[in-house]
Parts: sequence; structure tokens; C-alpha cells
Amino acid sequence: MSNMKSIVMSDGHLRLEDIPMPVPGSGQVLVKTRACGICGSDLHLTRHTQEVFDVYAALGIVSEEARADPRIMLGHEFCAEVVSYGPDTEQSLPVGTRVTSVPFLLTEEGQLGVGVTPEVYGAYSEYFLLQEGLLLPVPENVPDEAAAMAEPLAVGLHAVNRSDITPGEVALVAGCGPIGLACIVALRLRGVKTIIASDPQADKRDMALHFGASHAIDPMHEDEMQLSAELAGQSRVIIFECVGIAKLVPDFLQRAPQKSCLVFTGIHTADITLNVALATVKELDIQFSYYYQPEEFAQSLQSLANGDVDWKSMCTAKVGIDGVPEAFDMLMKPNDHIKVIIEPWRNGALEAQR
Amino acid sequence: MSNMKSIVMSDGHLRLEDIPMPVPGSGQVLVKTRACGICGSDLHLTRHTQEVFDVYAALGIVSEEARADPRIMLGHEFCAEVVSYGPDTEQSLPVGTRVTSVPFLLTEEGQLGVGVTPEVYGAYSEYFLLQEGLLLPVPENVPDEAAAMAEPLAVGLHAVNRSDITPGEVALVAGCGPIGLACIVALRLRGVKTIIASDPQADKRDMALHFGASHAIDPMHEDEMQLSAELAGQSRVIIFECVGIAKLVPDFLQRAPQKSCLVFTGIHTADITLNVALATVKELDIQFSYYYQPEEFAQSLQSLANGDVDWKSMCTAKVGIDGVPEAFDMLMKPNDHIKVIIEPWRNGALEAQR
Repeated sequence: MSNMKSIVMSDGHLRLEDIPMPVPGSGQVLVKTRACGICGSDLHLTRHTQEVFDVYAALGIVSEEARADPRIMLGHEFCAEVVSYGPDTEQSLPVGTRVTSVPFLLTEEGQLGVGVTPEVYGAYSEYFLLQEGLLLPVPENVPDEAAAMAEPLAVGLHAVNRSDITPGEVALVAGCGPIGLACIVALRLRGVKTIIASDPQADKRDMALHFGASHAIDPMHEDEMQLSAELAGQSRVIIFECVGIAKLVPDFLQRAPQKSCLVFTGIHTADITLNVALATVKELDIQFSYYYQPEEFAQSLQSLANGDVDWKSMCTAKVGIDGVPEAFDMLMKPNDHIKVIIEPWRNGALEAQR
Repeated sequence: MSNMKSIVMSDGHLRLEDIPMPVPGSGQVLVKTRACGICGSDLHLTRHTQEVFDVYAALGIVSEEARADPRIMLGHEFCAEVVSYGPDTEQSLPVGTRVTSVPFLLTEEGQLGVGVTPEVYGAYSEYFLLQEGLLLPVPENVPDEAAAMAEPLAVGLHAVNRSDITPGEVALVAGCGPIGLACIVALRLRGVKTIIASDPQADKRDMALHFGASHAIDPMHEDEMQLSAELAGQSRVIIFECVGIAKLVPDFLQRAPQKSCLVFTGIHTADITLNVALATVKELDIQFSYYYQPEEFAQSLQSLANGDVDWKSMCTAKVGIDGVPEAFDMLMKPNDHIKVIIEPWRNGALEAQR
């Protein structure tokens, strides 16, 4: 059995390791990674591994053993190509076909998340495994790095769909990283007219306007909640929380307009304190959004094929597999990047794309 | 100017006082109270006055002065009769007409809640003031004590409407006091088939079944969340939190089924701690419901006129105005009452009605 290179996260650190090639089981496909995005949740999982696994354990998703010393092969935003099929497969896609997929394996132990579950291969590796029944061929006009962005776009689409926002209501997108931009893309495609983007970084605000926000404001100097309420009038304000910093949440709840809806798009592992009386008198709705439905993922891939998303502006850097640990160190600090794409089939340090 | 009797709450105690009769201002009507329900929120406000007023002050609803030593003339669930009109009124309802109303005065200071706002008369008094434009005449076949129940029924209807529950989804009503029963009534009228009522008191469970619950279980001995999830299958579970005990909330959130919706119908002034990761992985929705829309109030009154609600079973006792402080002491402890109706036009201790 031959080996392959894989980025393995354990104890808060990434290491490039040589590990055995995965072998596809029943219904599975061995794929070669062509491109994989670095997700904010990968950074979060690396920084807060134990908190995340405590939650998983509380939910019965992981064993106590895995919880004690989680080793994760990261990577769940990918474009790959079919290498070989396991048993019990239909093999309708020829070897070499470029594919993407919702990042799940359907096993006897249940649905396992690719790139987040101990013992499950992720796409920060030269090769990994996918479920044949979930494969989506990548349209020819969608390059590898674009296909890898179907996943974060689907996260934004799901959050927007969950909110059930109508075109006349007002969206406030707080935080204009990849998920904030994905929300803006989904809101624009849904026909929402008033999309207020809020980010303290000027370049992120510019990106938000480029992707379809109608307003972009700096929350350090303007009151984004008040502007939203003013523009909404009697309509509802839907706030998409895309910052991902738990300590900001009580302030969000405190300042949220009457009858607004707050959608959490990211996982905060910290507990937050909620003043129920305040939320009641304001009649807030709070929604928690997690992953997406398969059809939302497919729709995001189709949006890329339709040219509805300027994915090139989102892809701010590429990096080879040996450059990933250093790239992570950089991304853990304040930075201007939106989406960094790993190309695990090559070596190479981070290269800016714009 | 003549005086009248009024129950005044201050410093956590109720006192029967002789106070000057109110004088209707522009657009206002002087009414005589025929019946007024004791609401759980009246008990809560009496027990936790300072906490409630701290929240009101934080929202800018009350002045710092009112916050320091709130004196409240309670009573917001009422049937009354028109006594006299203030200036700038159309006077289309003859003096003596039985009326009810959403409990609000529309003043230059904004919308003020009747029975909850310092300086605003409440219906635990012989007389109080209403807004002419908000008056609803009480249909002849709706007795006084029934008309007083339009208000709590509207609270339940609003919570159910906010949840947007469909007939095939599963409702779990946690706590079968007046608001729990009002939710059950609204759910049944909406056509919801599976309504699980949960209450540790056997008589409350019997009432829940009488009012239309399909199942009634004791949460001390059965897992109401698990039963709800089982009966829901792939459908959504909507949990109506009608217990009103803040310390139970974290456990509710912990045990709530995947993709369920938790609707808070009562005001908790205590802060609660929310594990966002858990709520996210389960994709919970949390909705806070407060009061109702005027049309929901009118619809509740119409339900009573239509004979859709067995209000007689809800009215467990009546009390004269001088018996109110003693009735409050009794209601503050565990008891079997559902709705106690005050008749402020007479004296008399609590008399059971069933």
C-alpha cells in the first residue's frame, strides 16, 4: 500500500504527514484533491479543538476516546477527480471526472462529516474518500478553485433560505468574510433589494459592495442596527451573524431592532448569556444555521456555472500542501484574505492571487 | 372629584387603596370594570418588580424615576362597560355598552400598557381608562368573565401564529396553565393534529386533554421531548414554553429535538445561558412572543362568541376587590387554579367556581 501526503491537525497544530492511501469501502470512491478551501471553521477547530469536541461528545457524535485526543484530517471545501471505485458502486462517472460533493460519508455509524471527523480523510490531503451517491460532476466552465467554493456559498444560501427573507425585507450582513459574502450572493440572487454589509475592514466592505450589497458601513463608526431599522421601516430586519466572535453576540442581541431575526451562520463554542426579557419585549427570532441541504449545495455549484458569482475576487491566495501550516499561522492573525485555496498535489508557499 | 377603590402594587405587595377616579383625556373613555383576570405576569411583576423595571428602563420604556419605586395599578385582562367619554371621541357605543380592548392607551408618550405601566390605571380597579379607537363591544352571548379571557387567549394565538406551525407538524406545549391552554386552543383551531401537553400536575393534564391536546404527559416521569420527536418523524417539533421558570430553559434547549422551534410565551427576567454550538448543530429556532396583534385579540373574542372555547372550565374562582391581596398570596404558592376572575365592583373573598 502506498503512502500519500496529508495535513493532520492535532493538539492545536497542523503537521504535514505521510500516511497510508485510503481504500474506498462499499459505495465509496477514491478521489484526488485538485483544490480545497481553507474554511474559518478549520481555523476555529484548530484553535478550539477541545471545546468543539466537548460539544460533539455531548451530542453523542464522537466517542469519548476521540474526544480525548482528536486527530483531524481537515478539508471539506473541495474539487477532486475520480481515481478509483470501491465495491458496490455504479461507476457511471469515468475515472478522471472532476467532482465535488457535500462533505459527508454515509456509513454504518451514520453520516460522518468529511474534514471534521476523526478517522475520516479530509481534502487537505492528496487523496480522500467520497460517497458515490453524493458526487456532483463539476461543469467544464467551473475551474477547480471555483468548484471548491460551492461549499461556502451553500452555507450562505442555507442561512438565507432558513431566514425566509422576502425581497422587500432588509438584510444586515455582519462580517464580510467568505460566509458574509456568500450570504450577500444568496440574498442578491433571491432578489433582496436592501442588503447592508457591515465590516470594520475597508477592503471587506468594498468586496461586499462588489458582490451586491446595497450599503456597506463600518460598525466601529456607524450604528449598523439603527441604519437597518431606518431602512426597514415597518419591514423585518434579518441579521446574518457572520463575524463568528461569541463575545459580540450579547451586544448584537441588545442592539437588534424590534421584531428582527438574528441568524447565526457560524458555530460559537463559547456559551452566551441571553436576556430573555429583552428578547421577548423586542420579539426577536434567533435561528441557528448549520451546513445546508444537498439541493442547496447543487444550486451553489450551478450558480458558479451560470457565472452568477465572481469567484475570482474571492480567491485571494493559493498554497501548496507543504505551505499549509505556515498559511494557517498567518490566517490565525488579522489579515486581508478571503478564500485561500490549497492545492495538495503540489508543494509551494502561499501566493497571492490579486 | 369622587374616589374609587383600586388595587395598587408597590414594593412587592398589593394594597386596596382609595384613589381619585380617573378622568378620560382626549380620545379616551372612562369604563367600569365588570371582570378582570389575574395573569401570571401580574404575579411575576409583583414578585420581580425591580428586575422587570430594570429591563423596561434598559429599553427606555420607563423613566429612571418610575424605575426607582414603581407603583402599578394592575389589571389588563378585562370586561368593562362604558361610563363616559372624554373630549375628541365619536361616542358611537352607548353608555353601558360592555366592551373589551387590547390593553393599551395611545398617548403622546407613545403606546402605554394598561395594567403594567406606572401612572396608568389598570382593571384591578373599579374604574379605568381605555382608548375609544381600540374598543371592542362584547357579543351578548359572551359573559363578563369570558370576555376577560380574550386577552390570555390572544397571547396563545399570537405565539401559535408566530411559530407558523402547519397542521402536520407536532406541537409540544410545556406547562398547562392559562397560556398553555390558550396555545392548545389556538393549535386546535388551526387544525394541528398532534398536540402534546406536558405538565407535572394531573389536573392540568386533564384540562389540556379537555381543551384539545392529543397527548398529555408528566415530564417528571416521561421524556416529553423524545415523544415529540418520535411522533414528528421528519416533521418539525414546535415547543411552546408556557412554564415560565427560567432555570428550566437550559435543559429545554439541551433536550430539544433536532430542527425544532422553541417559542417563549412568557417573560423571563433572569438571564439564561445558551450554548450556541449545541443550538447550531441542532439547527434550533428560538422565537420570543410578546402580547398579540389587535386582530388576534378580536379573533379570540370571536372564538368565545362562537362557542369554540370552554371558558367555564378555565374560570376556577372569582374574588371581590377586597379579597385580591389574599388571593395573590394564595396564587404565589403551588395551587390548582387556572384563571381567577376579580369583580372589582364588589367585596368578597375567593370563591371556587367548580
